[in-house]
Amino acid sequence: MAKISPFAPERLAELPPIDGVRMASCAAGIRYAGRTDLLLALFEPATTVAGVLTQSKTASAAVEWCREHLRHGMARALVVNSGNANAFTGMRGSVAVKETAHAAADVADCLDADVYIASTGVIGEPLEPSKFVARLAELARSATPDGYEAAAQAIMTTDTFPKLATRTCKIDGVDITLNGIAKGAGMIAPDMATMLSFIFTDAAIEPGALHAILAPLVEDSFNAITIDSDTSTSDTVLLFATGTATKRGCPRIANGDDPRLDDFRAALAALMRDLSHQIVKDGEGLTKFVKVTVTGAETKAAARVIAKAIANSPLVKTAIAGEDPNWGRIVMAVGKAGEAADRDKLAIRFGDIEVAKDGEAAPDYVESDAAAYMRGPEIEITVDVGVGAAQDTMWTCDLTKEYIAINADYRS
Amino acid sequence: MAKISPFAPERLAELPPIDGVRMASCAAGIRYAGRTDLLLALFEPATTVAGVLTQSKTASAAVEWCREHLRHGMARALVVNSGNANAFTGMRGSVAVKETAHAAADVADCLDADVYIASTGVIGEPLEPSKFVARLAELARSATPDGYEAAAQAIMTTDTFPKLATRTCKIDGVDITLNGIAKGAGMIAPDMATMLSFIFTDAAIEPGALHAILAPLVEDSFNAITIDSDTSTSDTVLLFATGTATKRGCPRIANGDDPRLDDFRAALAALMRDLSHQIVKDGEGLTKFVKVTVTGAETKAAARVIAKAIANSPLVKTAIAGEDPNWGRIVMAVGKAGEAADRDKLAIRFGDIEVAKDGEAAPDYVESDAAAYMRGPEIEITVDVGVGAAQDTMWTCDLTKEYIAINADYRS
Repeated sequence: MAKISPFAPERLAELPPIDGVRMASCAAGIRYAGRTDLLLALFEPATTVAGVLTQSKTASAAVEWCREHLRHGMARALVVNSGNANAFTGMRGSVAVKETAHAAADVADCLDADVYIASTGVIGEPLEPSKFVARLAELARSATPDGYEAAAQAIMTTDTFPKLATRTCKIDGVDITLNGIAKGAGMIAPDMATMLSFIFTDAAIEPGALHAILAPLVEDSFNAITIDSDTSTSDTVLLFATGTATKRGCPRIANGDDPRLDDFRAALAALMRDLSHQIVKDGEGLTKFVKVTVTGAETKAAARVIAKAIANSPLVKTAIAGEDPNWGRIVMAVGKAGEAADRDKLAIRFGDIEVAKDGEAAPDYVESDAAAYMRGPEIEITVDVGVGAAQDTMWTCDLTKEYIAINADYRS
Repeated sequence: MAKISPFAPERLAELPPIDGVRMASCAAGIRYAGRTDLLLALFEPATTVAGVLTQSKTASAAVEWCREHLRHGMARALVVNSGNANAFTGMRGSVAVKETAHAAADVADCLDADVYIASTGVIGEPLEPSKFVARLAELARSATPDGYEAAAQAIMTTDTFPKLATRTCKIDGVDITLNGIAKGAGMIAPDMATMLSFIFTDAAIEPGALHAILAPLVEDSFNAITIDSDTSTSDTVLLFATGTATKRGCPRIANGDDPRLDDFRAALAALMRDLSHQIVKDGEGLTKFVKVTVTGAETKAAARVIAKAIANSPLVKTAIAGEDPNWGRIVMAVGKAGEAADRDKLAIRFGDIEVAKDGEAAPDYVESDAAAYMRGPEIEITVDVGVGAAQDTMWTCDLTKEYIAINADYRS
């Protein structure tokens, strides 16, 4: 059992019920005994859904199912299992997804196409849906509006704490709630883990508009984090909008650009950033939470490439683990990113400490100050590459011996 | 002091003299006391040179100097120092390179433009050329044709063994020798290390032809290895051809496609592959030497991208360190590479063991067989992505706790 992350929250967020969402979870014995591993969420009719899925070329059968059905954008049920990713399981994998959808549609009294599915856990082992399909009816009967904490726990694989967040906002003067749960990208043997996040709201937003709001926000939240540069076959973010706030006079909104959604968008952005940072803060073996900002780039995309090169560099990450203000490794990472950067204008800051400037060590730089800064738990690295006005930020953690210990263990 | 690599050769290659090449090295005290850190090589007039340099956007001043002077392609001297990379040292860095070239030109009695320079070591600290410029005259006087082993030692930073290789071939019936030395990409604190290789031959080949032969061979040798995905600001491969074999009737060749160079090309390819594999075999903390071959790709470039994604994946590399036949992580790495791959035709072999086939675990796969295979020191992973006929190979090593220990230490 891995040590609890030093960044685990002292107290979990308490998520209020959202009208139109009920959920239940249970221990179906998919891989491990004695822990919950199956979640069923049920939604009112007229619930819309939008999603963003892994770009992996070896995506799992569940991801392919979601990709196909997100096109119609309506949802009545969500089934998530942990312990087995049902990825790289050939034709049997697709059959398992179809059987699961059909069984969930039965208990939710809806079309198979209204069921969304996510699986996380080990890759390449056949998933036997009979193990949990039989439990869906019982879960549907016991589903309640306050099952979020249990749900966040049921989708964990090797996360060391459940990830929950909630926000409120107004749409046209009506109070709206947003709840979200997530599980980490911590990829720990014996599981091939996955980033999953499910977000729920009582807002009434048409599928196209919902997607238009969700997709760009993924860029600066779940796509702006990296633990170890590896990408899962199953990464899934789904946003369900029950529309039940219409009972309280909330309008149903069809256009993602509608200014009445501004506050909703801001609340959703904050909630997604919160969940994504919780994922980083549960990275395997981490001791530091690291923010990497690149400024002065030609475009935001170029700034992202450079920030990612820094955030993924094993040499930068091990230096941070060693509390070493080794800014030469940051120069190296900027150089290897391949995007435009002016070596002779490059500037680097650790927190507020100016480390390098105009392409060489800053005149007033005192290494002991930077070394003291590196001993803190949260590290901010800012790099100006001196060629433009665009910027971007990535969040990551350090790379420690504990990461290796966790990931080099035998699969049991 | 790092442990000697388990792959260090029992006996170093013995390099014969090459007519027209003399070298000497000394301890100039550039960073560490008690070890050699300065190499001077001198070449006969009419020696040609070709080179391949880092693509880093933050390349060092020495790399920029070489890039400029490789255009004329003639060489009389090579100066290499270890201990300080003279990278990210602003205007002072360029001045240091010019002073070094001028001093070397003085002792070699040649143009500054005929001097090539490489520096490896810590980034961002000014390099004081006076420290070693004064030693060049003495080195020139003591230079001998048999200084290769000492030279390979003088360019080491945190390499645990010197890297040497030699080959012979014939050009138009005349015996030709190729000698090469290299230092590793081992990027160990406190140094930002670098891949450097210098190759010497008595063949007579015009600069353009020499470059035409060298550049493509770098692709399948030095560019086909990865330790930790990081790219140095100073990577340099230089090939010097003295032309002294003309004294023994060897023709001077002006065209890289000349069939009389076929044997030379093959010998050079073998020598470069040998040196590049020695670099991998000295990767920090390694316990396994790993060959990753991707077949069935659309193009060689696509196969390279997929092979690199596998070879650089921290999860794949930690699994290998743990002797875990965790092929799910290989599926993941193929998926994240982004190149065309048919999930349902994917096949994976560890050595001769068929692990996965047609997108799922192979029917006859026995995990204990694969686990036994993973306990060997050299691991071959072959992945067929099922979309074409192109293939490519990368070489890498595993990722161990020792790597983290080495790289997370404070800079001293």
